[in-house]
Amino acid sequence: MSGMRPTGRLHIGHLVGALTNYVALARTYEAFFEVADLHALTTGYEQSETIAANTTEMVLDWLAAGLRPENCAMYVQSHVPEISELHLLLSMIVPVAWLQRVPTYKDQIAALGGDIATYGFLGYPLMQLVDIAIVRADTVPVGKDQLSHLEFGREVVRRFNYLYGPTLVEPQAELSEFPDVPGTDGRKMSKSYGNAIEIADDEAATTKKIRSMLTDPQKVRRNDPGRPEICPVFALQKVANTARAPWIEEHCRSGALGCVSCKGELAEKLNEMLRPVRERRAALDASQVAEILEAGAVKARAIAKETLADVKSAMKLA
Amino acid sequence: MSGMRPTGRLHIGHLVGALTNYVALARTYEAFFEVADLHALTTGYEQSETIAANTTEMVLDWLAAGLRPENCAMYVQSHVPEISELHLLLSMIVPVAWLQRVPTYKDQIAALGGDIATYGFLGYPLMQLVDIAIVRADTVPVGKDQLSHLEFGREVVRRFNYLYGPTLVEPQAELSEFPDVPGTDGRKMSKSYGNAIEIADDEAATTKKIRSMLTDPQKVRRNDPGRPEICPVFALQKVANTARAPWIEEHCRSGALGCVSCKGELAEKLNEMLRPVRERRAALDASQVAEILEAGAVKARAIAKETLADVKSAMKLA
Repeated sequence: MSGMRPTGRLHIGHLVGALTNYVALARTYEAFFEVADLHALTTGYEQSETIAANTTEMVLDWLAAGLRPENCAMYVQSHVPEISELHLLLSMIVPVAWLQRVPTYKDQIAALGGDIATYGFLGYPLMQLVDIAIVRADTVPVGKDQLSHLEFGREVVRRFNYLYGPTLVEPQAELSEFPDVPGTDGRKMSKSYGNAIEIADDEAATTKKIRSMLTDPQKVRRNDPGRPEICPVFALQKVANTARAPWIEEHCRSGALGCVSCKGELAEKLNEMLRPVRERRAALDASQVAEILEAGAVKARAIAKETLADVKSAMKLA
Repeated sequence: MSGMRPTGRLHIGHLVGALTNYVALARTYEAFFEVADLHALTTGYEQSETIAANTTEMVLDWLAAGLRPENCAMYVQSHVPEISELHLLLSMIVPVAWLQRVPTYKDQIAALGGDIATYGFLGYPLMQLVDIAIVRADTVPVGKDQLSHLEFGREVVRRFNYLYGPTLVEPQAELSEFPDVPGTDGRKMSKSYGNAIEIADDEAATTKKIRSMLTDPQKVRRNDPGRPEICPVFALQKVANTARAPWIEEHCRSGALGCVSCKGELAEKLNEMLRPVRERRAALDASQVAEILEAGAVKARAIAKETLADVKSAMKLA
């Protein structure tokens, strides 16, 4: 089980990070992929009107990346009301102090300001556990930075099972580390930095974004030697053009390779990598998404209802 | 709309306080009465196995007091999943600081110990607002001590309506103050003090409880003068035998009235007052309760679904 907040169109950072992994996981596991709209509200309750359109765009990217509704469940979190019910039930046994101790809580408050310190935001690590527990997921792909969340969730499961008898599955982490994909300005690729190459960009837009990237400012003329280690174009070459990166590094440093050629090769490689994904995306109809999500919610709810019934029964609630 | 935690059999304190008022309200309003099982979990999650039986006993007392399923909705909170959903949605806009400021929060932690400081317990004033808002209640009977909770709830409604447009009803308080009914030891009547006369007690048990009450320790013999102001029997006379209280006070003070006669009269009055209620209770079949609660949940959910749909639509959630 994994989920993503509906932030709209995804970029190549998502593709080489999470999405390729999702596609692989869906081959091995009975997989559940959630559009985490309630999580989006924890930090974006004032922009809730963006969620619906962002959901459609994001799921189109999931499908374009190769997820198929036949071999996984794709669903919107708020379409599974059992998640809210289990969240409220589990909230009764979770000490406030456990939530306040989750490392990201204070970090995020420091980063986003005190307005974010809502009751819902405080509870979001619990909601993550509920997302996992409700579909009885035994395996969760996580990066190292999310291990503390998963450990919190495992503690909640152990506490529940201790209080009411073995009921919930203690999820295991499947560590999946991907290099951060650098954006066109060298920082981590992120929509909010405006440095992203989106899956849904067309080839001309991709090429234009690459062409307008800044390179080593000391490499003024074509044959000046460059410093690949500070060049964002080279950083992207390492991700999208791995095999050719050593050659490029050498010839940039010697001055033999000019920035225009280097960018041209990168744009070509990126477009090549994205072409099958983009072709799938272009062939999709946005109106299919609603249907796919509906079917996904039916799949998720079938198991969610069972989990909730087990939980209520363990708690002896009628 | 009002609710009670399922604590089991109710006593005459509940009867002359809340229940008589419930019956009157159900005549005037479209009334919703909730068995607040999720609230019971906020402080009693370790005793969740008592909730089911307590629910049945309590609803039998409601029916015995005169509530009729035809003119109100009686339902169990957890049978209305829309409550959990609305609770989670509203949690996103409620600052943690608002909840921490609710006067009862720190009082209860001081009284019940830090173990109670769970995420669910912190959120219980929000859950109270959700109970009210989900059935679009405009009027809530409250005692003065609960006004701060209702004011918190009104603030949440105003914040929601400000952020997403007018959607939720701002509930009004109907102040209903009833004197605390003294128990057989002179303290406030409460099951946990073991000083309660329960609606479901039989007449012999009631008489026995009254007969074993302690009176003024200075009134050793029948004709010794008594001090009604310190006598728990007299305190109960004022509640259950109001018209005769002045006469009793005078003759206790003068020594003309002995404790045995005084208790005898009180027991008789109490049994008289409770007789029709007990007769109704005896005629009830516990197996009816499940059916009544099911019908009540259907009524409550009909309106709860509309409210939730309005809320999601205001937030532009698909």
